[in-house]
Amino acid sequence: MKQGKISNRVIRRLPKYLRQLQELADNDVDHISSGELGSKMGLTASQIRQDFSCFGEFGQQGYGYSVEKLLTEISAILGVELDYPTVLVGVGNLGRALAINFDFASIGYRLMAAFDVDPDLIGTTLSGIPILSMDDIEDYVRENHIIAAVLAVPRTVTHEVTLHLQNCGIRAICNFTNTDLGLQNTDILVENVLFSDSFLTLGYYLAEELRAESSDIQEDTL
Amino acid sequence: MKQGKISNRVIRRLPKYLRQLQELADNDVDHISSGELGSKMGLTASQIRQDFSCFGEFGQQGYGYSVEKLLTEISAILGVELDYPTVLVGVGNLGRALAINFDFASIGYRLMAAFDVDPDLIGTTLSGIPILSMDDIEDYVRENHIIAAVLAVPRTVTHEVTLHLQNCGIRAICNFTNTDLGLQNTDILVENVLFSDSFLTLGYYLAEELRAESSDIQEDTL
Repeated sequence: MKQGKISNRVIRRLPKYLRQLQELADNDVDHISSGELGSKMGLTASQIRQDFSCFGEFGQQGYGYSVEKLLTEISAILGVELDYPTVLVGVGNLGRALAINFDFASIGYRLMAAFDVDPDLIGTTLSGIPILSMDDIEDYVRENHIIAAVLAVPRTVTHEVTLHLQNCGIRAICNFTNTDLGLQNTDILVENVLFSDSFLTLGYYLAEELRAESSDIQEDTL
Repeated sequence: MKQGKISNRVIRRLPKYLRQLQELADNDVDHISSGELGSKMGLTASQIRQDFSCFGEFGQQGYGYSVEKLLTEISAILGVELDYPTVLVGVGNLGRALAINFDFASIGYRLMAAFDVDPDLIGTTLSGIPILSMDDIEDYVRENHIIAAVLAVPRTVTHEVTLHLQNCGIRAICNFTNTDLGLQNTDILVENVLFSDSFLTLGYYLAEELRAESSDIQEDTL
């Protein structure tokens, strides 16, 4: 694997490449040209070639890219094989949905335990992992060398829980609380999953369509 | 509001501007310079000025931007005031989490009903909205002029449910199923909320850090 600094913009496209390539592999496609891959992803052939040149050479002039080689290489770059020890923090509806429906193992995370404050939940299991008391989270993270936390607690306790995670040296947080964790000046890596951004973006495109339609109607009635 | 084609890249930044400006307004900040706003958002002053110039002039040389004006204008561009009639499809853990915890009204969506196949749920309510039978979804969408659907059904029924939504003329889908809806060649607007992309991106940065640390260790032991 070629090393070096890859721009954030390219990195954010890697999961999309991975998904697209997985689909091609599932459909028994061996090779694909930068043009074909580009048209599937809404990118130009030259953008594809430029992206891939950031981390090595996968293609051969006239043959296109090997789907399998690309899949292996991009998975490695994304650390999919690294199996990060992970905890789920918060076993409400969202935490439960993630533990039950989301395949953490397939993308490099090993979910080892969940934490909550509800005495009815503590001591039970969820998708095969134990639900433990939030009081024990710092000890557990230290003793089990936990690297990542999936944060799915209510907004009101987000700050308090984030402090616990910071105290025990967590390395990365995938934040589903829809609030800012205020960890800008720390070494902790944070990825915010902000549902509102998706709805707002969708709202923009809807508004644009509705405006266009209403101006069509106005023109028709002139 | 200045009209015209705004690039997708700028549009995807609008929700982030909205969040940042809301925070400034909450902290009683009246004006902000492009430099200050840029440093809060990880952008350069000139990127900020360029973005804002796409949809009009909000700033005055030497005074910076009016936070309130920007908030009003960006909210309007995003269609936050438009109140899109919306249904929730799927009342599992994730659908429940969304209905209970997510403030749809504040970002322009009016949640009117939820749909599920579970006879124990049908006829009950969730966060003040009725849970109706999936059999009735096409009629309901048509009769109530529903514009948007929040899709939170299990992966296995995604295709079938998507067909229902397509049949009854839904305009937009916010897709939480983590699968592709296959609606590329239709007029339906789709926004995919892909949890895996967030985890994969986080995994990349973690892998990068761990590689750097292990090479530090190797150098120390030379």
